[in-house]
Order: sequence, then structure tokens, then C-alpha cells
Amino acid sequence: MAFSDVDWLDAAAALAGRGRPLSRPNPAVGALIVKQGRVIGRGWTRAGGRPHAEAEALAQAGEAAFGATAYVTLEPCAHESQRGPACAHSLREAGLARVVIGCEDPDPRTAGAGIAMLREAGVAAELLPSPAALHSLEGYLVRARFGRPHTTLKLATSLDGCIAMADGTSQWITGPEARAHGHAIRARSDAILVGGETLRADSPRLDVRLPGLEDRSPARWVLTRGSAPDGWQTIADPASGDFGDAQYLLIEGGAGAAAAFLGADRVDRLLLYRAPILIGAGRHGLGDIGLTSLGNAHGRWRLTDRRQLGSDTLDVYDRIR
Amino acid sequence: MAFSDVDWLDAAAALAGRGRPLSRPNPAVGALIVKQGRVIGRGWTRAGGRPHAEAEALAQAGEAAFGATAYVTLEPCAHESQRGPACAHSLREAGLARVVIGCEDPDPRTAGAGIAMLREAGVAAELLPSPAALHSLEGYLVRARFGRPHTTLKLATSLDGCIAMADGTSQWITGPEARAHGHAIRARSDAILVGGETLRADSPRLDVRLPGLEDRSPARWVLTRGSAPDGWQTIADPASGDFGDAQYLLIEGGAGAAAAFLGADRVDRLLLYRAPILIGAGRHGLGDIGLTSLGNAHGRWRLTDRRQLGSDTLDVYDRIR
Repeated sequence: MAFSDVDWLDAAAALAGRGRPLSRPNPAVGALIVKQGRVIGRGWTRAGGRPHAEAEALAQAGEAAFGATAYVTLEPCAHESQRGPACAHSLREAGLARVVIGCEDPDPRTAGAGIAMLREAGVAAELLPSPAALHSLEGYLVRARFGRPHTTLKLATSLDGCIAMADGTSQWITGPEARAHGHAIRARSDAILVGGETLRADSPRLDVRLPGLEDRSPARWVLTRGSAPDGWQTIADPASGDFGDAQYLLIEGGAGAAAAFLGADRVDRLLLYRAPILIGAGRHGLGDIGLTSLGNAHGRWRLTDRRQLGSDTLDVYDRIR
Repeated sequence: MAFSDVDWLDAAAALAGRGRPLSRPNPAVGALIVKQGRVIGRGWTRAGGRPHAEAEALAQAGEAAFGATAYVTLEPCAHESQRGPACAHSLREAGLARVVIGCEDPDPRTAGAGIAMLREAGVAAELLPSPAALHSLEGYLVRARFGRPHTTLKLATSLDGCIAMADGTSQWITGPEARAHGHAIRARSDAILVGGETLRADSPRLDVRLPGLEDRSPARWVLTRGSAPDGWQTIADPASGDFGDAQYLLIEGGAGAAAAFLGADRVDRLLLYRAPILIGAGRHGLGDIGLTSLGNAHGRWRLTDRRQLGSDTLDVYDRIR
């Protein structure tokens, strides 16, 4: 079976996922070096951003890289840094015949210069825009475009849209599969946020309770104009928060914090976990988001994934921008 | 291609759907007569209950019915009536070799006597319990078991579970495909109900606005202790309503009426139309359903269908009994 360039970029994007979110402040990149239909090197951005994916893949391939094709999710960097050589330079030196790139780097120090550097050296560098590569880089790309992390709002509700009973009880609405999925999403986030009221009422730990991933617990933030306990950072206004170098922010409630971020149009993705139960007169997941007419509500969200998690359903909606 | 008995019963059940809901007070039955792999007669219960499905199918098959197999969704009736002969008798007289039956008739005048009458005459009568046949007869079966119609609650909501904005605006949450589907469901219902508050606030017509199906508009009911306008019937308490001879009741809101029927455990099916919008601080679809603990909410509803209607999603949940 022959694989296409699109297939190889998809595979590189899957590799890139292993770098998320530990690659920060660097993007999580994936790279494959392929010769005569066989993978001879692969890499993804390591914790803290080094080594780069290309450097890892080149080290694996060794001299066999000569004449091979590299597939990289993001344009190779064109700038030398104190932390290592430019990847475009390394690829050229290794004698790669061809480099297929899933996404141009918005970093102004690269921004086409990586592709140009390769082409000047006679390497066939091709930009092949790849949905899988874009998806794997969305935290980096949102930060480059908007100066803030890619932001996901999670809601776990009954069929009638309640996140808790009227007295606040919410253990448990969704089942163990959905809750484990939620912890996996936490492990792929740099930062996690709740509202001040939720912090005071529930004292949530917001850590990752999956075996082997306990050290992936994200930085904890609270939306408040007041102070926060040790181990928490505060943000007073959704519109002002850059969340340090975080690329992926997860909002876990409550209704006020969720509404504040939606009202500021700071939410890129909705994760809606829905259990097959009815609650009736319970608590709802969103406060006032500032909607003034139903017409304005349409055309903003697109279903991008749906899966069954035990008896619960997860729907994923992405903001159309 | 050879069809199995299950396939033929599925086809008979699909035919039966044509009788819904006009067959009332009779069940909507479907019948096929098959000889050497070919359909030689088919029928479904006509408006008002006559002719029966079997009588139609036999009339089409004529003398060719001798030695053939009949597939009927419901056990053929064993009792003569002023309106026609018993179907078990007619099938026997026509010389059928075999009769395959999807569901025993709970009517005490038949209840096994139809099968017995066929077997006594040397016809191979087999009960082959068929999910499709049961599904096509659910209104009849719920009425036989509980003395009330099969009851469906429809909710059209935003992703966050709102049925309207805070000021009551609900035109439009769902799109034209979902609204047309809702009218098709009305056309398959005998009776339709709203709460008194909804009737006073919205004066809904609750009619079927699909070309060619305008005459299928169901009987209109309102949940109220007061009076109702001309053309409406009243019911004071969900637990007391038998809705005449209706087999299929559709509840279209509002939140109080929906909660009253759920609280009385009178809802068999949920139709949840969900549009890809967020409303925030809007109106919710259910009032207090009397839930006292989250544990009690689980194990009651099972997802039985899910389909995309334009950009909206329809989820169908059935009560587990």
C-alpha cells in the first residue's frame, strides 16, 4: 500500500500530539523522515521545546536522510537560537531531497523564511496545508493570532441541560467513561480555570487523576477580582487574560465564568458531555452571555466530533471564525 | 437474494406505519402474503380500523394465497364482529400454509386464540417476536397495558438546554428541517397537548403544515383545571388522562406541562431537537419533575435513535420499563 503526502502529514500530526502540552512555549510539532516508503526517522517536540521534532527525526535517520523526504506539521524554523541551530539549516545540511510542510509558521522570525531557506539550497520544499496539522497546532496558532490560549469550555449536563440539582449536587451526572475522558482533556491542557464562586463552593482540585499522567495537571486559574489560595493564579476579566505561555486553556465552570468567557467571545471549543438523565428544576450551565436576539446566536458553532462514552454522549462544537 | 422471516416481518412493520394514526381505535397492522419469494398481497389497517391488513392482503392475493405464507405484525383476530369476519378464519379459509406473527395480541378476545385457531386448522402458525413489529404497534401496546396513549415529549433547545430566550422568544431555535420533522411527528399522532400557560401565551395552532398532510392534524388537548377554547379538550391531571381512543400523544410544552407528565412517569419517549447555538440566561424546557436524588435519575432512558436534521441534531430516548 502506498501512502500519499496527506497520509504522511496526518501521521506526523498524530505524533505531534505527544508533545502537547509539554512543548510550551514552543509549538508541538511532529516530523517524519521517509525514504522509499519507509519511516527512517520520527520526532516530536520535547518538553520545554527542545529538541525540536526535526532534530529528533534527523538524529534517528542519520546518514540515510540523504535524498529522503521529510514531513513536518509546521514550517521548519529559520532562526538560529542559543538553544540550537535552525531546523531549516539542519534539514538542508542532512541532504533531504524534499520537505512537505503542513502549515506555515506565523512566527515573524520564520513566516516563510524556512521554506525560502530550503528552496535556496535546492531542497524541494512544499507547503501542503493539512487540516490534521492545523488541528494539532491550534493552541500555537490561536496564541499567534489572538495572544491568548485556545480555549475550551467543558459542560457536563443532563439531557435537559442541567449541570447540577437545585441544591448543587452534581455527583454524578456523567459516568466513569466521560469523567475519565475529561481528565484526559485536562492532561492535554496547560491551564485550567474556574470561577471564584465555584472555587469557594467546591474547592476543586482540578488535577489529573489518570494513572501515569498525574504530573500533567495544568496550572490553576480562578476568575475573580479578589485573591486566590496558594497554588492558584487569578484573572479579573476574560478579555485581559493571556495566561502566561499557555496554549490550551480549559474552563470547567461555573455558569458565571463560562458565560463571561462566552460573552467576551473567548471560547473556541465546546465539550458537551450529556448523560441520559432528566433533572428538571436544576442548575443550568450558563449565565447571561449577552445575547440580544436569536438571529445572532446562529452561525457561530459547528459540530466537529461526536462520540459515545459509555451511556453518555460527547459533542464537540468549534467556534466558526 | 433470499429474505428471511425477520426481513418479511420488518417489511410488514414498515407497511403498518401507513396506518398510523388513522387506524384508531384499531391497531395499525401490516400484512404481506409471500409465495416462492414473491409478494402476492399486502395490506395495512385502513382508516377507522377496516378493512384489516390481512383482509386487504388476501383480497389482492386471491386464489394464489393457497399454499402461501402470510407475515402479519400482530396476531390475527379470533373474534367475529359486526364489522367483518375474524382474520384467523379468513387466513384459514384461503388455504395459507404458514402464518408468521410478529406480536401476540393483548386483546383478551384474541390473546393466543388467533394462533390456536390457525393451528387447529393445520396452518403452521408461528410467533416470531419482532422488534420492528413491536415498534410499529407501540401505541396499541401501551394502551393495552396502561390504558393511556404512548406519550412523546418534544423539546427543541439550544446546546445549553434553553427552549426560548428570557423574554420568551423562540422563533427560531431549530432550523427548517427540524421543524418539518416535528410536523411529520404531529401527523403520526392522534392527540397533542400543551400546558394552559402555553395555550394562553402563544395560542398555538398545533396543526400539521406539511403539503398533503393538513388533514392529519391531531386532536388538541390542554393541561388545565380551567376551561378551554372551542376545538380543545381539557385534562386536569396527567395521571387521569386516557385521551379517548388516542394511541399516540405528543406533548409540545411548556415546561410545566412537560414536568407534570414526567413527574407522573407518563412519558415514553423524548424527542430532543438541538440547535448549534448558545442562549445563556434563557428559559428551560422542564420544571420540577420531583427528582430527589441524582441516583434516581439514572437507568430510566435509553438512546434509540439519533439523526442530523440540517445543522440540528435529533436524539430520541425511550423510557426503560
